[in-house]
Amino acid sequence: MKKLNIAGIFPPIATPFANGRVAHDRLKENLDRWNKTHLAGYAVFGSNGESVYLEQEEKLALVDTVKQNLPQGKLLIAGTGCESTEATVRLTNLAAERGAHAALIVNPHFYKAKMDNAALKRHYLTVADQADIPILIYNVPKFTGVNISPEVVASVAEHPNITGIKDSSGNIAQVGEMIATTPPGFHVLAGSAGHLLTALALGASGGILALANVAPDECCRIFEDFRGGRHAEARELQLKLLGANKAVTAQFGVAGLKAALDMVGYFGGDPRPPLLPLGEEQRNELREILKRANLI
Amino acid sequence: MKKLNIAGIFPPIATPFANGRVAHDRLKENLDRWNKTHLAGYAVFGSNGESVYLEQEEKLALVDTVKQNLPQGKLLIAGTGCESTEATVRLTNLAAERGAHAALIVNPHFYKAKMDNAALKRHYLTVADQADIPILIYNVPKFTGVNISPEVVASVAEHPNITGIKDSSGNIAQVGEMIATTPPGFHVLAGSAGHLLTALALGASGGILALANVAPDECCRIFEDFRGGRHAEARELQLKLLGANKAVTAQFGVAGLKAALDMVGYFGGDPRPPLLPLGEEQRNELREILKRANLI
Amino acid sequence: MKKLNIAGIFPPIATPFANGRVAHDRLKENLDRWNKTHLAGYAVFGSNGESVYLEQEEKLALVDTVKQNLPQGKLLIAGTGCESTEATVRLTNLAAERGAHAALIVNPHFYKAKMDNAALKRHYLTVADQADIPILIYNVPKFTGVNISPEVVASVAEHPNITGIKDSSGNIAQVGEMIATTPPGFHVLAGSAGHLLTALALGASGGILALANVAPDECCRIFEDFRGGRHAEARELQLKLLGANKAVTAQFGVAGLKAALDMVGYFGGDPRPPLLPLGEEQRNELREILKRANLI
Amino acid sequence: MKKLNIAGIFPPIATPFANGRVAHDRLKENLDRWNKTHLAGYAVFGSNGESVYLEQEEKLALVDTVKQNLPQGKLLIAGTGCESTEATVRLTNLAAERGAHAALIVNPHFYKAKMDNAALKRHYLTVADQADIPILIYNVPKFTGVNISPEVVASVAEHPNITGIKDSSGNIAQVGEMIATTPPGFHVLAGSAGHLLTALALGASGGILALANVAPDECCRIFEDFRGGRHAEARELQLKLLGANKAVTAQFGVAGLKAALDMVGYFGGDPRPPLLPLGEEQRNELREILKRANLI
Repeated sequence: MKKLNIAGIFPPIATPFANGRVAHDRLKENLDRWNKTHLAGYAVFGSNGESVYLEQEEKLALVDTVKQNLPQGKLLIAGTGCESTEATVRLTNLAAERGAHAALIVNPHFYKAKMDNAALKRHYLTVADQADIPILIYNVPKFTGVNISPEVVASVAEHPNITGIKDSSGNIAQVGEMIATTPPGFHVLAGSAGHLLTALALGASGGILALANVAPDECCRIFEDFRGGRHAEARELQLKLLGANKAVTAQFGVAGLKAALDMVGYFGGDPRPPLLPLGEEQRNELREILKRANLI
Repeated sequence: MKKLNIAGIFPPIATPFANGRVAHDRLKENLDRWNKTHLAGYAVFGSNGESVYLEQEEKLALVDTVKQNLPQGKLLIAGTGCESTEATVRLTNLAAERGAHAALIVNPHFYKAKMDNAALKRHYLTVADQADIPILIYNVPKFTGVNISPEVVASVAEHPNITGIKDSSGNIAQVGEMIATTPPGFHVLAGSAGHLLTALALGASGGILALANVAPDECCRIFEDFRGGRHAEARELQLKLLGANKAVTAQFGVAGLKAALDMVGYFGGDPRPPLLPLGEEQRNELREILKRANLI
Repeated sequence: MKKLNIAGIFPPIATPFANGRVAHDRLKENLDRWNKTHLAGYAVFGSNGESVYLEQEEKLALVDTVKQNLPQGKLLIAGTGCESTEATVRLTNLAAERGAHAALIVNPHFYKAKMDNAALKRHYLTVADQADIPILIYNVPKFTGVNISPEVVASVAEHPNITGIKDSSGNIAQVGEMIATTPPGFHVLAGSAGHLLTALALGASGGILALANVAPDECCRIFEDFRGGRHAEARELQLKLLGANKAVTAQFGVAGLKAALDMVGYFGGDPRPPLLPLGEEQRNELREILKRANLI
Repeated sequence: MKKLNIAGIFPPIATPFANGRVAHDRLKENLDRWNKTHLAGYAVFGSNGESVYLEQEEKLALVDTVKQNLPQGKLLIAGTGCESTEATVRLTNLAAERGAHAALIVNPHFYKAKMDNAALKRHYLTVADQADIPILIYNVPKFTGVNISPEVVASVAEHPNITGIKDSSGNIAQVGEMIATTPPGFHVLAGSAGHLLTALALGASGGILALANVAPDECCRIFEDFRGGRHAEARELQLKLLGANKAVTAQFGVAGLKAALDMVGYFGGDPRPPLLPLGEEQRNELREILKRANLI
């Protein structure tokens, strides 16, 4: 069994809302623009897609809309991780039925202290056994308070239905360890544009990057420059994007990502409560940061 | 408008499963026993009830079962907090329809860094405005990574539909600050049996305590001894229960709480995956701890 | 061998500086005032005494000054904990020579992750064996990032030269566990006025409290009201002091403690760099907080 | 004024002890071997040199020994950061008198919460103004609990006497930000072999690496392969060393570093208490890890 090849740059797309409901027309407009770039596909309802604020039917409708607007050759990844193992399998297979190619499964995390190596290993193996599509582990300690160890990743990486991991820990040595201790064909993907180039330098196959919503061309260019051996160009662009990347992630969060989308010509809109939209002063600061990165 | 009086001891009841499904008959048996104690009521699908592993219909069915077995004068509190404000209101009002007297609303927490004072304040005021039953704030940083500040609590405590807070932070000075800065009639409840007596000494009105699943009489006795001015007795019992309380919370978690239920004659059973049940060695250690606390 | 009885309220006294040097005359003035209160003694160069900014000779000179101004019956405790076991023994015995009655030994902490149970146990037993005066363990995770477990405390509590522990963790259940699992005669002391009353309610023998620098009478009154069975009075005063205590500890730190000393009529002065003194706005806020607590 | 050029690989050398005293003869033997490698110099009494366990005279004697055995062209960096600003200046200038070329100044950290941007900025500017040799900022949150922000680094980087920073945070995006926002000639150095290659890929000028004690040739080879454009070789070696690097840092700490020195033919010995030496089982595990990395 050959693993699904997940390489290149994917945005975990923001979920557009109008009057509190998912705005599928706006999403379609965004997709029309993103489709003109070199993005390798889309991750829907990941953590930047406000997954935790979406009902199951809303999630599946998002799969439908992206699927209907997905060019040949691009991949559709659905963020189907839930707290319970059973619910994760169920949602994964519903997304598969609607056409998702792969599932991004966040570490279960409410009972953080009990999500030890044994619990995470059982979880991922069970999901992988029962899922109808390949799965990617999703490690994002800043949101979950849980970090999956390279030892667990190595121990499940041979499973034919576990195709890789998105690591957003920001711990680049850990990314390297995951690459060093998993078999060829297991894909380690950067989880933030802040460490895209460095993850590639260690052997990552791409990235699932919030910033790729706003700066798809630039993110793809780092990937392509690196692959093409144009290290100086890749480095220069990586350094230039760091401030913008921080702005749409740690600094301003999902509300900042959506405001940035609005500023660069996509539809962003407001996040769902309890997330607050940016205030005017924050928007001004964000605009300056995007200008400095040549994104507007 | 007079606030709902929430005083005394409540267990956040464990959710019994058999073959992976909610075992309502087992829950009824547990309730029959708990009903013979001085417990002031029950909290269903709180964090010890594996709320994050339950589907909406399972939650509402739990409300039904407890309601049908609820003696006059005891309160039914439902753990209806969700990540989104809108979903929280919706689930709260569904639980209200089925007979819940109050709702326990955990801090939204996935986007931890953005759950600042302004976001939490808006969340709780919105939910309180739209909820058909009184709400209790639920602060449990060990699971959520979010701590609500006493300042926010004070700023929303006058809302007629916010009746109090369950604080499980373990930060007793913070519990005191919440008592000192909120109006009379706002109920501050201990969130762990580990600080029950000390919270009472500062003016708390009771506690919602995992340990009260296993040791309802003992927890009620601390409350009653304290109220009756029997400080030495209350202190002695409080100290004796600390080890058992730690065992069924931080040390062994929900799986430990359920194993302890089995050991003291209730039905506990296994938690849902990804939580692992206790191994044999852990069970032996737990049994010794319960014996030392005179619970078996 | 009977353990030294450490009961009542002790301030970990601020170290006054003038032109960057220790101002022994100012310290003497402060001591003259403190000596008129019911304080049970003084802790010199604890964490509130800017121990980490003092040279060894400065520390020993502080012992001298306090010793010369120490009324009969009051205790002098010196904060002699260092990172290395050997240096801790050496400084402890130098302080003992100069007249200190007991030593407060902070957990070594630079190599946090390696300060496990075995390392801490060996450290405290070695120091206790070699120290010429009784030692108190000092647990202050907010500064050290290390928490000593109740298990280690219980395992060393029988040592005749380990007289007790100051616990500043703020984890009141842990304070209770330490009381419950150590022999009578082992003194558990509150490490912050924020949990003074609650620690007493569990059996603590007193407190070493930053706030006792500024509000010695009030801190002593909580202790005496509690001992005298005047629970309502103790509770009322405890609640009133919480804001002021937070101001001179977590909120404004040592600089705030010193500014508060100036405001209530003692000498405070500025901390040593790199600590910054309070700005004007912070001073105004602090003054309001002290007023609300009836301290000015 | 041209800044001191700090490039290449430096080990923060372990301090050898025999019978509890610094073993200068053993240190000389180690230096004789290290001197045959391409190491650019040595950092003495950094965090891996058990700085916190050394007396001032021991530190200065270490400067002497290294200086006397230092080949022309290699740099001697002394870890002279103390908690107080004044003590830092004093020790820095004593080390300068004894021949140190530069000083590595760890963030002051006992009062973590107060080491904000303003306090750190004042500290570093004051030290830089008064130091007789160039200084390197040293950021090591795992030991200090303090992270210096890229904003502070950028704000002091123009100071002619601040020559760079050693960043051991492991946050590679932050390393990149420091490179992107400081002027050319400001040296950003990797603080761990775990992110050496990736830091170089972003523009770092070298590294001060615990692993370089044990594997100086390998660490230098990564640096030279990278500089020479041999990316594949650099990557392969970087991945191979990750496990060994983790073993002598996070996993086994200073005791592990010293045990590894013994295993590869240098003198390591035991750390000072309270650090515990490795047990037999840990030594066996360490030996296997070093074998897998081809270091023995």
